[in-house]
Amino acid sequence: MPLGDNSWGKSEVRLSKIIRGEAGDDFVDLAASVLLRGDVERAYTTGDNTAVLPTDTMRNTIYALAQDHLGRDLEAFGELLCDRFLASAGVTDAVVALAERIWDRATPHGFVGGSPERRLAKIARGRTEATAAGIEGLVVLKTTGSAFEGFPRDEYTVLPEAVDRILATSVTAEWDYATVPVDTSATWSLVRQTLVDHFFADWSASAQHQGYQMGEAVLSAVGEISEIRFRLPNQHHLPFDLSRFGVPWDGTVFHPVSEPYGDIRLTVTR
Amino acid sequence: MPLGDNSWGKSEVRLSKIIRGEAGDDFVDLAASVLLRGDVERAYTTGDNTAVLPTDTMRNTIYALAQDHLGRDLEAFGELLCDRFLASAGVTDAVVALAERIWDRATPHGFVGGSPERRLAKIARGRTEATAAGIEGLVVLKTTGSAFEGFPRDEYTVLPEAVDRILATSVTAEWDYATVPVDTSATWSLVRQTLVDHFFADWSASAQHQGYQMGEAVLSAVGEISEIRFRLPNQHHLPFDLSRFGVPWDGTVFHPVSEPYGDIRLTVTR
Amino acid sequence: MPLGDNSWGKSEVRLSKIIRGEAGDDFVDLAASVLLRGDVERAYTTGDNTAVLPTDTMRNTIYALAQDHLGRDLEAFGELLCDRFLASAGVTDAVVALAERIWDRATPHGFVGGSPERRLAKIARGRTEATAAGIEGLVVLKTTGSAFEGFPRDEYTVLPEAVDRILATSVTAEWDYATVPVDTSATWSLVRQTLVDHFFADWSASAQHQGYQMGEAVLSAVGEISEIRFRLPNQHHLPFDLSRFGVPWDGTVFHPVSEPYGDIRLTVTR
Amino acid sequence: MPLGDNSWGKSEVRLSKIIRGEAGDDFVDLAASVLLRGDVERAYTTGDNTAVLPTDTMRNTIYALAQDHLGRDLEAFGELLCDRFLASAGVTDAVVALAERIWDRATPHGFVGGSPERRLAKIARGRTEATAAGIEGLVVLKTTGSAFEGFPRDEYTVLPEAVDRILATSVTAEWDYATVPVDTSATWSLVRQTLVDHFFADWSASAQHQGYQMGEAVLSAVGEISEIRFRLPNQHHLPFDLSRFGVPWDGTVFHPVSEPYGDIRLTVTR
Repeated sequence: MPLGDNSWGKSEVRLSKIIRGEAGDDFVDLAASVLLRGDVERAYTTGDNTAVLPTDTMRNTIYALAQDHLGRDLEAFGELLCDRFLASAGVTDAVVALAERIWDRATPHGFVGGSPERRLAKIARGRTEATAAGIEGLVVLKTTGSAFEGFPRDEYTVLPEAVDRILATSVTAEWDYATVPVDTSATWSLVRQTLVDHFFADWSASAQHQGYQMGEAVLSAVGEISEIRFRLPNQHHLPFDLSRFGVPWDGTVFHPVSEPYGDIRLTVTR
Repeated sequence: MPLGDNSWGKSEVRLSKIIRGEAGDDFVDLAASVLLRGDVERAYTTGDNTAVLPTDTMRNTIYALAQDHLGRDLEAFGELLCDRFLASAGVTDAVVALAERIWDRATPHGFVGGSPERRLAKIARGRTEATAAGIEGLVVLKTTGSAFEGFPRDEYTVLPEAVDRILATSVTAEWDYATVPVDTSATWSLVRQTLVDHFFADWSASAQHQGYQMGEAVLSAVGEISEIRFRLPNQHHLPFDLSRFGVPWDGTVFHPVSEPYGDIRLTVTR
Repeated sequence: MPLGDNSWGKSEVRLSKIIRGEAGDDFVDLAASVLLRGDVERAYTTGDNTAVLPTDTMRNTIYALAQDHLGRDLEAFGELLCDRFLASAGVTDAVVALAERIWDRATPHGFVGGSPERRLAKIARGRTEATAAGIEGLVVLKTTGSAFEGFPRDEYTVLPEAVDRILATSVTAEWDYATVPVDTSATWSLVRQTLVDHFFADWSASAQHQGYQMGEAVLSAVGEISEIRFRLPNQHHLPFDLSRFGVPWDGTVFHPVSEPYGDIRLTVTR
Repeated sequence: MPLGDNSWGKSEVRLSKIIRGEAGDDFVDLAASVLLRGDVERAYTTGDNTAVLPTDTMRNTIYALAQDHLGRDLEAFGELLCDRFLASAGVTDAVVALAERIWDRATPHGFVGGSPERRLAKIARGRTEATAAGIEGLVVLKTTGSAFEGFPRDEYTVLPEAVDRILATSVTAEWDYATVPVDTSATWSLVRQTLVDHFFADWSASAQHQGYQMGEAVLSAVGEISEIRFRLPNQHHLPFDLSRFGVPWDGTVFHPVSEPYGDIRLTVTR
């Protein structure tokens, strides 16, 4: 039976790039998709793959070209990718779709991600009485100022020591009020600002160390808080290994992964 | 067999309230949850509901008390709810959890919602050549400046005419470039700002009318764009009917619903 | 500027219907969407809504026609809806899309919903030692055999007493092993089957009562389990009020809502 | 300030394993999480990582031990992992949580995944008249009977040739009726069964080849269908490279990834 319209490609290729500049960094965070059409009918009807550029190759191409060519002009990068794929034998059409998640630069190296962030309040009355507040979905990332070194190694440890790395998380924090502040909204805003400021300003040796400093800062800033609890998922940005293609990695192109994530939890008390 | 720890409540009660002020409105958008404990063992073991406050009553209570009592102090509102539930016979413990979605006030009556907003670019090369850009997840809401009146009525029409209502949407727009601008990033930012400005500033007789004005404004602002296509889900905020409890609705408390939504699509060309 | 292609409609209209039969019930669970095109250009360009059938009317029409006309032939129902909408002045095109969630009938009135169900195991070692197992995403529904009556009423209670109603939930349960069974997989399957069997077979006066019976049955069936904890979200199926259109509700058409939900939690021990 | 309760671990480690047997394969598909507690206070307070087992090492350990030790007894595997982590210096507590997605074996090597599968119907009337039906969320996987070889290689191609591999997808298909069948429900069930049967039975040289055979089979089985369109996301199961730990990979342990995915689309007509 006749094959009708068909295409093949790779979707949801997640890629981030640090573009370093005088005034600070730019951070480009993309989900890229490629869809090709071409003279590949025999792949469908007889299983002949001689013209089927692997979708894994498409993925690799995106990362490889990103290092030298991805900048703020997404359309130019998309065109470059299209041209590259059209140069493959048998490819007649290429569509590249790029979706960039928006990060707002807050400091030269610190970014806040667009997010359905929420203010939380939790009130218990009856046999237990407590008032807590919190935040969730506070998405922050810094391109420098975080390390992870000096950890123990065993036979399954291959992680390299990192003197400086991207640190990104979506902060969930909940704090108890020993005394409920007069203006809970102003207090919430102060806690939020303290979290953001210290995430960006405090150098950290780990996500754990980062969280502790943030907790200390909140307790210092707001006398009514007796304890703060954090969940800090470590949202990894993995260096994408270009050396397989004979290209040395220059420290700018990363593969952000949603899963797995480091699950860092801590409580800071008085 | 013995019943151990148990509780009952209502989760994800979605509620929004306009708090009108001199300098403009505040918009509080909550997902509220209640969890009670009490002397209700017989409900589990024998089906005796005499002490089981219905979770539907909890929901109604939240809306009813919100009209007079919900303000910026979420903790105070939560405490009020707890006290109310503890007054029910047999209830020994109440926990109220409130999660407020953050909306940033951009104009006295216009708000931008926290969102994983994305910049889009779509590049086609080969037998078809086109360059398009777009935006998705641009969440905007205005508390006034939108109507829906004069529509046809049939036997299944019960919708009241609205002289003034909340209008909220998550804008998805895609536009074609007849000529790709020199600075695609600056152009994207200009389009985004134009969309936001006109959503807030232009009075509209419907979501359709709103979208058309936004499209016209974009085409006026950016000469390189030949056509813009919109999807504008009408994210309904329904007046919550308090008259069932003998309380007249004062125009401030709404029930935002995720589904169904009005599905408004349009194209503006030159 | 010229208006290009445009359409308006309602999306994600959730509707379920019990079709009672000799051998048992059929349960049709739909998300319906409508999209119309027509002579409505002036709605966009000048705000004239005289030809704009409200999307709320579309929603009502779907429920109203479902009572008499929705059966297993989704395509026939879709065609009926299209014909109805095309009869509205100015409508030139109608597209109806229906998406039916699959429910497998397990008993004459009991259904298991398609779901990414998961088996859980949780092992703690160190200062605390415990082995627990669990299930999540076990989606079950019955069309009869559940009531909710005799509950307390206050000024915010409008819920009618229900002698017989739909009960639907997505079971999350976790149980502790006093002794880990020799065959944990067979034990897990036995627990699952016991939960399903008793959900369908045991008449309940409430979700709480249902859960307790399920817990008792599990503890009776598996001697190694010391305690079982449930979360049973009560996924409401609301009678859709057709009386506003002069049509008496015949007990078959419901509006399933995702939020809010009743949050029922309990523990059964030995 | 004092550090309170704290823990660190890795969440959402996705792992699948083929357990080959006489009567056919078993397929275990896990999301695993680890959470440790220990003498790591100095990591938080001073940035001293000497006792912080990296979460990346936890991940690797899960995969490495799975090859020899993961079977149907999830609790035993969890206990083994706990014991291993407790052997690390300074670790005092370990919690391992395993969540297994349920796959039903349909043939010796073919599995259907639990899923909120949906039957689709799409009816257009007016200037365009068409009736289509469809399916989405039909999750299928086979442990053998699919290859991907003979594809073109360029400088960015590192994908090895695969004589035999896991093939998994979530089928979305839509088909047009030239004539609407008398019994659309029976026809839908026949199409669904045909898709499942041929996915399992037909050897394929690629996802494209697999889809074409499925489409041909549907058109052969149902005379009323004029055309069928597929979207077949290739849900990759990557061999997890254990050689870094000096362990040869034995072909059973995989890393399933959600993103990116191969995006395979095709139409089969008459």
